[in-house]
Amino acid sequence: MIIVLKQDATEAQIEHILEKIREWGLTPSLSRGEERSIIGVIGNESILRVKPVDVFPGVDYTMNVVKPYKLANAAFHPARTVIELPALKGAPPVRIGGNDLVVMAGPCAVESREGLLEVAQCVKEAGATVLRAGAFKPRTSPYAFQGMGVKGLAILAEAREKYGLHIVSEVMDTRDVEMIAEMCDIIQIGARNMQNFNLLKVVGRCDKPVMIKRGLSSTIQELLMSAEYVMSQGNHRVILCERGIRTFEPMTRNTLDLSAVPVLNRESHLPVIVDPSHGTGHWDLVSPMACAAVAAGTDGVMVEVHPRPEEAFSDGSQSLLPEKFRLMMKQMRAIAGAVGKTM
Amino acid sequence: MIIVLKQDATEAQIEHILEKIREWGLTPSLSRGEERSIIGVIGNESILRVKPVDVFPGVDYTMNVVKPYKLANAAFHPARTVIELPALKGAPPVRIGGNDLVVMAGPCAVESREGLLEVAQCVKEAGATVLRAGAFKPRTSPYAFQGMGVKGLAILAEAREKYGLHIVSEVMDTRDVEMIAEMCDIIQIGARNMQNFNLLKVVGRCDKPVMIKRGLSSTIQELLMSAEYVMSQGNHRVILCERGIRTFEPMTRNTLDLSAVPVLNRESHLPVIVDPSHGTGHWDLVSPMACAAVAAGTDGVMVEVHPRPEEAFSDGSQSLLPEKFRLMMKQMRAIAGAVGKTM
Amino acid sequence: MIIVLKQDATEAQIEHILEKIREWGLTPSLSRGEERSIIGVIGNESILRVKPVDVFPGVDYTMNVVKPYKLANAAFHPARTVIELPALKGAPPVRIGGNDLVVMAGPCAVESREGLLEVAQCVKEAGATVLRAGAFKPRTSPYAFQGMGVKGLAILAEAREKYGLHIVSEVMDTRDVEMIAEMCDIIQIGARNMQNFNLLKVVGRCDKPVMIKRGLSSTIQELLMSAEYVMSQGNHRVILCERGIRTFEPMTRNTLDLSAVPVLNRESHLPVIVDPSHGTGHWDLVSPMACAAVAAGTDGVMVEVHPRPEEAFSDGSQSLLPEKFRLMMKQMRAIAGAVGKTM
Amino acid sequence: MIIVLKQDATEAQIEHILEKIREWGLTPSLSRGEERSIIGVIGNESILRVKPVDVFPGVDYTMNVVKPYKLANAAFHPARTVIELPALKGAPPVRIGGNDLVVMAGPCAVESREGLLEVAQCVKEAGATVLRAGAFKPRTSPYAFQGMGVKGLAILAEAREKYGLHIVSEVMDTRDVEMIAEMCDIIQIGARNMQNFNLLKVVGRCDKPVMIKRGLSSTIQELLMSAEYVMSQGNHRVILCERGIRTFEPMTRNTLDLSAVPVLNRESHLPVIVDPSHGTGHWDLVSPMACAAVAAGTDGVMVEVHPRPEEAFSDGSQSLLPEKFRLMMKQMRAIAGAVGKTM
Repeated sequence: MIIVLKQDATEAQIEHILEKIREWGLTPSLSRGEERSIIGVIGNESILRVKPVDVFPGVDYTMNVVKPYKLANAAFHPARTVIELPALKGAPPVRIGGNDLVVMAGPCAVESREGLLEVAQCVKEAGATVLRAGAFKPRTSPYAFQGMGVKGLAILAEAREKYGLHIVSEVMDTRDVEMIAEMCDIIQIGARNMQNFNLLKVVGRCDKPVMIKRGLSSTIQELLMSAEYVMSQGNHRVILCERGIRTFEPMTRNTLDLSAVPVLNRESHLPVIVDPSHGTGHWDLVSPMACAAVAAGTDGVMVEVHPRPEEAFSDGSQSLLPEKFRLMMKQMRAIAGAVGKTM
Repeated sequence: MIIVLKQDATEAQIEHILEKIREWGLTPSLSRGEERSIIGVIGNESILRVKPVDVFPGVDYTMNVVKPYKLANAAFHPARTVIELPALKGAPPVRIGGNDLVVMAGPCAVESREGLLEVAQCVKEAGATVLRAGAFKPRTSPYAFQGMGVKGLAILAEAREKYGLHIVSEVMDTRDVEMIAEMCDIIQIGARNMQNFNLLKVVGRCDKPVMIKRGLSSTIQELLMSAEYVMSQGNHRVILCERGIRTFEPMTRNTLDLSAVPVLNRESHLPVIVDPSHGTGHWDLVSPMACAAVAAGTDGVMVEVHPRPEEAFSDGSQSLLPEKFRLMMKQMRAIAGAVGKTM
Repeated sequence: MIIVLKQDATEAQIEHILEKIREWGLTPSLSRGEERSIIGVIGNESILRVKPVDVFPGVDYTMNVVKPYKLANAAFHPARTVIELPALKGAPPVRIGGNDLVVMAGPCAVESREGLLEVAQCVKEAGATVLRAGAFKPRTSPYAFQGMGVKGLAILAEAREKYGLHIVSEVMDTRDVEMIAEMCDIIQIGARNMQNFNLLKVVGRCDKPVMIKRGLSSTIQELLMSAEYVMSQGNHRVILCERGIRTFEPMTRNTLDLSAVPVLNRESHLPVIVDPSHGTGHWDLVSPMACAAVAAGTDGVMVEVHPRPEEAFSDGSQSLLPEKFRLMMKQMRAIAGAVGKTM
Repeated sequence: MIIVLKQDATEAQIEHILEKIREWGLTPSLSRGEERSIIGVIGNESILRVKPVDVFPGVDYTMNVVKPYKLANAAFHPARTVIELPALKGAPPVRIGGNDLVVMAGPCAVESREGLLEVAQCVKEAGATVLRAGAFKPRTSPYAFQGMGVKGLAILAEAREKYGLHIVSEVMDTRDVEMIAEMCDIIQIGARNMQNFNLLKVVGRCDKPVMIKRGLSSTIQELLMSAEYVMSQGNHRVILCERGIRTFEPMTRNTLDLSAVPVLNRESHLPVIVDPSHGTGHWDLVSPMACAAVAAGTDGVMVEVHPRPEEAFSDGSQSLLPEKFRLMMKQMRAIAGAVGKTM
């Protein structure tokens, strides 16, 4: 940690700070500058992190030097994490991370048995290996469709069985984790729950991969800290998902921050997925942004597909029609080749 | 709802839309403009809200006209909500809303029995009527102090008993709601859980007032929709809290959006509290912003007070020393008088 | 325009509004809803745009339906604009827009004659056709290097002559427009001057293509309105440039909004360039984001290249080394092929 | 400056950096940490600021310790700046800064001679001492009213003469500075020109006070750097103006960042003005936010007043009616008293 002193910090104030630091078992190093002086602190920075050093008299502000994420940090884990989902119905196992590019597709929500099976077949045929669909839906309005719940999970299980697709679905409540972990292949933490720390702790004790969506106003570091929560409980199979952040721009539902992909690839060893459906909110922007995500180095893409968006209960305007989805898959495959990935 | 058509919408497309609207039991009204035409829809707009009209061929975009919050909407409830907390130890009952200005003060977290009782006495003497302190703490890092939990709640109950202060404390998990509702006078939903919809539903079935903090990137309308969630379950005693939003400005921890106060006063009948401690992140900005909040028309202020910020486990840098707190109370009282409130 | 009335609007207020609209030569159309009524206005909306209809008693708010950009609007100009720069030294003419992908490269600023010629040769050999370098530099600090000015322009002219590269350089002052227009092939309006309307008007009367960079907090619509300023003066050869917007994320200098590329391609007929150097601020993010821009459908990329970033006067940390630039060109070429563009 | 090294920085890389720093005449101080090492640099930091130290091999990132603003910095100028405008027509001189609270009021733009004189009389009678009105107007659309120009300035001069009000008006072009400086008492730099550095330099050589409005997405530090530009040219009479920043919140035109007031009061010695009209965009929010600004410690307030907002050419919806303005003045006066200011 660097402690930047005020220009008018007194000798007594400086001495008090140095003393405290030594008391905590750390070694301070004072550098006197022309305008202001600074104290560098050597040793285990995590001790300092919980000390409100910036309120000590004479201190202007402090800066952390060491990154707060350890288990998610590429510097400590040079080998990239590859998450393998078990082989289903004779298909090869799905690998998330590494050179493979995974496609997760499906409707926003499970709306009916027939509808889900129809989409499942369609995305399977087009090359997706993971089926996405919400059984529990976080909705801004209490008056909107809240998802089919347990019944939706059963329908997902049937689609899994029938088409050999892995299932990713969202959990919103600590009380539901066990049930969802049992029925799904990947547990999704939604953007609005990225900092629901109790939920993170509970999924951190599950034996299923967890995909964490970046919060609407969460920094990349906060996303990594949420991964750290899950990993600190023992579950190291974490997938990070960029799905757009909130900015002032009204022409898109969110601003898809694709630069998060190379930043996460540099900072962390965990696989990264991009969701251009929520990231843009408009079906006609999904395909260009999915292709861009592949070019930027993502490990996979998650998109919403619906055969009759006019009838969707939610997110119809950002859902791709099956034929658009197939076209997008073709384009993505070409770009994947250009950047050394296989789909 | 207004449906704005594309410039090149065909007659067949327009006819299809009009037909669908009539099918849903609503009355469309087509206006043909020079450049583009629009369809206004009369009738129960909530039917339309769940229809993805913007994906119909020929539609450019849609705009809602009717506000989605009903129970929280001032237009339907002209009388302002005043929440009364029961009289404690002979003191007059505390009223939140109306002409009274309430002050909620205390440490960020319960850290020890002695520490809490010391702060309780101090804020009581300075004129606060509600004691704030977290027993369960949402922390960005899994390695940071997570709160004293149930033990912290017991200490809060003791302070309540001893000093006649009402208690406000945060709930983070649906499993803890019952326990916290029993021991506290106001249940707090933290900013990171503002859209934890399951939690909102559970507190909506409690018999205690609920204070909802605005999420870091939540719009004012989304805050009102979260209030609507609680109210839709039967609990109408909701308090709204502005605590700063996330912007690009690095000199403050958040940007305290004080204009939310007059906007909420216009849009809703619910009382509004401002938290300048989290809103600014620096103790020296707390007092000017608390005073500004009073001038802007807030119903109360929530601030962090700690006798030894150097020793605080969290948020030390934004905590006021007791003497600064007393000074702030004096200034707030003078301003409250100038805007017709009593403290 | 749609005028949304307050729930308690009186008949007299409604009548007053209808009357005024008719007075302005427009036709109002009143729809009475269950909760609130609306007035649609047919006719030339530009008349209404300058009337403060939202302050009329009884009005809640108004919404524009017609887009304010006309000359830049794809709906009125279905043919996409392709800007051709004259053939230099026997090379084929450079086309910006259409199926060609243009690369503009060079140092942040002209720093010396030798340095510039060295970079010019390098980017020419790697396949760039436009040389970028600032002679006049907008710098946050008055104490930072402000550019070589007129001397820098002369050096750029020499590089143009020697290597057959077209020149793009920034103008910051209405007084300098004529001189820069004479010496450069493309006049650049920097992000900080995107809404310097007088400057836009003056370049709008030049006979050179103008590239407008999106302001740090400008919406896509505002960018199009700045293009409209230039075009309204007669100069229709406008290029739009996405270079990152300001958000709360600190890990990148700006957040490169790549979804602006497909949005601009849909809304406008003007060519779009992406600048991943300013968009990210870190050289190691430039190449992935340049590739992503190509996949998203950009008409070109602008990047900073410097042979010795350690010695750059500005933006060294976001400049590519020549060998990294060559590698990036190779990757971009592969992706361009996958999306049907040629480089 | 602090140079944070990568975890895997080699000894040769570290040695190279230390050598370079010494070459530049500065003294490096290396602290070896457990995880990573840092180099503190003592001496004139402005030398380092122009060196791209963060691209040196082995460097992770760098942090500036010394603030880049000198002339605007409170640490170097403990006495607060008070700007005195000359006495007009027997009235006492107007002082901006110190214990006085100044009110600048008037229409958005000069629209006609009669209209301006009417507003001037009204704001004068209500207690304002400075008249605001634009003669040159920055408008997002080229098709909107662009201001009366020179004719507007002449009308302002007449109002000044007749009512003894000082005039503040915006300059948008380096070519107009001389003319506006001659006719106005305060030259205004608008938000969109806050980083029009050439314009800042030219007004920095004028003999009139300059009020700089904060850009829509400018940090407080950038605002201070723009003040530094003006001051570096010799003109030290600079006024800072907070007028709202751009955020994701759609219910207000901008988000008025009132915490900027105490931050600027701490960081700088220059007077601070708040503009709640542009800051909120709605007349009904102006008065609460003006009062809040006074409570937060502003040196003055700038508001838009129009007797017939329905007829305003621009910004009608955020203009106060004269009777609302008078009421606001009364409330502000009461609050000013509570915080020790006189109006």
